[in-house]
Amino acid sequence: MDIIEIIEKKRDGNVLSREEIHYFISEYVSGEIKDYQASALLMAIYIRGMNDEETSYLTEEMRVSGDVLDLSDIPGVKVDKHSTGGVGDKVSLILGPMIASLGAHLAKMSGRGLGHTGGTLDKLESIPGMRINLTEEEFKSQVKRIGISIIGQNEKLVPADKKLYALRDVTGTVSAIPLIASSIMSKKLASGTDAILLDVKYGSGAFMKTIEDAKKLAITMVNIGKQLNKDVKAEVTDMSEPLGMAIGNNLEIKEVIKTLKNEGPQDLTELCVDSGAILLKQAKIYDSEEEAKIHLRENLKNGKAFNKFLEFVEAQGGDTSYILNPDKFPISKNIIPIYSQKDGYVSKLDALTIGISSMKLGGGRETLDDVIDMSAGIILNKKVGDKVKKGELLCELHTNKEDFEEIKENVFNAFEISSKAFKKNNERILIS
Amino acid sequence: MDIIEIIEKKRDGNVLSREEIHYFISEYVSGEIKDYQASALLMAIYIRGMNDEETSYLTEEMRVSGDVLDLSDIPGVKVDKHSTGGVGDKVSLILGPMIASLGAHLAKMSGRGLGHTGGTLDKLESIPGMRINLTEEEFKSQVKRIGISIIGQNEKLVPADKKLYALRDVTGTVSAIPLIASSIMSKKLASGTDAILLDVKYGSGAFMKTIEDAKKLAITMVNIGKQLNKDVKAEVTDMSEPLGMAIGNNLEIKEVIKTLKNEGPQDLTELCVDSGAILLKQAKIYDSEEEAKIHLRENLKNGKAFNKFLEFVEAQGGDTSYILNPDKFPISKNIIPIYSQKDGYVSKLDALTIGISSMKLGGGRETLDDVIDMSAGIILNKKVGDKVKKGELLCELHTNKEDFEEIKENVFNAFEISSKAFKKNNERILIS
Repeated sequence: MDIIEIIEKKRDGNVLSREEIHYFISEYVSGEIKDYQASALLMAIYIRGMNDEETSYLTEEMRVSGDVLDLSDIPGVKVDKHSTGGVGDKVSLILGPMIASLGAHLAKMSGRGLGHTGGTLDKLESIPGMRINLTEEEFKSQVKRIGISIIGQNEKLVPADKKLYALRDVTGTVSAIPLIASSIMSKKLASGTDAILLDVKYGSGAFMKTIEDAKKLAITMVNIGKQLNKDVKAEVTDMSEPLGMAIGNNLEIKEVIKTLKNEGPQDLTELCVDSGAILLKQAKIYDSEEEAKIHLRENLKNGKAFNKFLEFVEAQGGDTSYILNPDKFPISKNIIPIYSQKDGYVSKLDALTIGISSMKLGGGRETLDDVIDMSAGIILNKKVGDKVKKGELLCELHTNKEDFEEIKENVFNAFEISSKAFKKNNERILIS
Repeated sequence: MDIIEIIEKKRDGNVLSREEIHYFISEYVSGEIKDYQASALLMAIYIRGMNDEETSYLTEEMRVSGDVLDLSDIPGVKVDKHSTGGVGDKVSLILGPMIASLGAHLAKMSGRGLGHTGGTLDKLESIPGMRINLTEEEFKSQVKRIGISIIGQNEKLVPADKKLYALRDVTGTVSAIPLIASSIMSKKLASGTDAILLDVKYGSGAFMKTIEDAKKLAITMVNIGKQLNKDVKAEVTDMSEPLGMAIGNNLEIKEVIKTLKNEGPQDLTELCVDSGAILLKQAKIYDSEEEAKIHLRENLKNGKAFNKFLEFVEAQGGDTSYILNPDKFPISKNIIPIYSQKDGYVSKLDALTIGISSMKLGGGRETLDDVIDMSAGIILNKKVGDKVKKGELLCELHTNKEDFEEIKENVFNAFEISSKAFKKNNERILIS
């Protein structure tokens, strides 16, 4: 087999065979195929596309390019949940304990934040003592014992994705649906769970800017599941404004705690209940989502979900005194209120601007080497659809930096206030 | 400026600016832009294309990426001629002396053969003593003195093309018209002549397989000339069968000598007279091609063209006794005749098969490191349109190798003999 012929085949819009995709991935990981050849093929794939079979083969070949986890000694259906990322998205940290409190087993490997998006690992690390690098054995035994563990990606899993992702990042080939889908799915499948729920975000704060693209990506990933005989479902949900009211690492953990005590924002609580119900059905714990939702809401009220979160934090070495008393979390030196300059209704709240602003306040990373300020971020007071009066608080910036005038200006402009009442059209789709 | 943004722009089908093309070429040559980024951009250019302006900017930026020759101290219009390559194409070696014998100045840098195509430099080197690496001063003073010099490409010219061509070769991005056109034209323009005649070949033995693609390439290169204010004309000519009767290095030099003595094959002589006439008009030596043709034919008959060839060989250190007595050239040990097995007319003679066979007999290179056997090749006795009888000679293989049965079979099959009379439709187009 010859890589140049494979490149030419895709360049001319033809379908690659399983053998050709196998050859590409295995020889690229081994170094036989060079970066400059891989990037030419990636660009051809970007422009010409891949059909569902090719995408599945690519996913499967990437999956087996390194170690794969075996969770078979954990009883029952092991579930995983993955969001394509956004601003203020702390859903996994809430619904994980929620479903574990009802007998599900969530075995999740997570990532770090970059640019305007936050990362579950960073948020967890804002809890003092929290370990996110468990051994495989620790991870499995914790899932078996308490029903939930969330850790960093095992470095030995899917080396093909690491190498390809780094290359895509510098060659303008990141945003191709078959490449995004295979990247996400190869990692999810290599971590050994039986059922996966994906949350594909759309809107300014998401990777996919339009609902159409998000649907395409969701359908592609669900089809990979079908081709590879895995139970994969995907929600397509809005990320045009941030999720919940808190953006920034320990700010979000405090919102997680509130939500698990059933005192969280409605949008966030609803998404956690909905997603949790889908996962509980996938885990075969309840036959219907309606039944699951009743129990999920019950466990938010009766404290069982919150207690599971405590158990989870303790199991991974976190200091639960912070969870029991969130006032212990460090608070930024500067808290800058931003007020509305007119009466009206919030008609837009740009998630991308909020995400970038939170990053610039210290709450995120511009490059992977940056160090995060766990207390920095933004607390929203108004969201899309809310009525607002002149002089009323829109949000607060939290930062230890002193140079925040430009950020303040940007965040103020992220809010659009219209004179007419505005009802948010929150389209949410489930693809299965 | 950012290479990733440039890649993304072309990836999405947009037009690159002059500044962006300048940035790409200069930073790629300096090593700032990496091979894996250049190959992604090349693939995007391959699939999305480039308009005439972009292609001209690319050509110009490549041209100035290294040294450029200044031929201004040679009087008159300096001309150059370039063929996109084929099988048995020795035209430059014939029409060069023809036009120089009429006062033109041909300053030509040439290449080596690879695969099924021959190279002018290799053919010249089959003449003992012939130097193809003159200094720039020697090259210019020879053109000034005798009106003709043909040498190897100056290594300092167009480093961008060397780097890009090597990359295209291993990334499936060779056969894109803007890339081929800018590669050829940047080199031609860097060598400093005033007028260029291109011969764009089509057919099985050519790089462009169809007349449509050859026309596209020719038009693109003529348009580059227009954008950059150079007199560029292009012929589009047939390479479905070999040109002339000889294929192989010293075999072709012997045919050059015969043709310059006005005893050459008709197809070859006609192409040399036609192309020579265009060049003499470009050189402003004659006002009309018709007038030029009369003088060209005259100088084939009166020996002036042949004498100019002798002068050219002598000037570059070649042993003219071989030119005066071509029987001195070494002859292959094995000369294998191939006969027709039926009566009829040659309806096809596949140039690609003949070219590959000549290479395998020792007359060409499979890789750039291979050493050529100057005496090896093929002498045709019949060409398309010729009447042939059963048992009559079709051609002879010349080789010093002993293992030629498969080649013999292939060459025999390269001839198609039909029972009906067949007249070759030799379409030739001039684009200016």
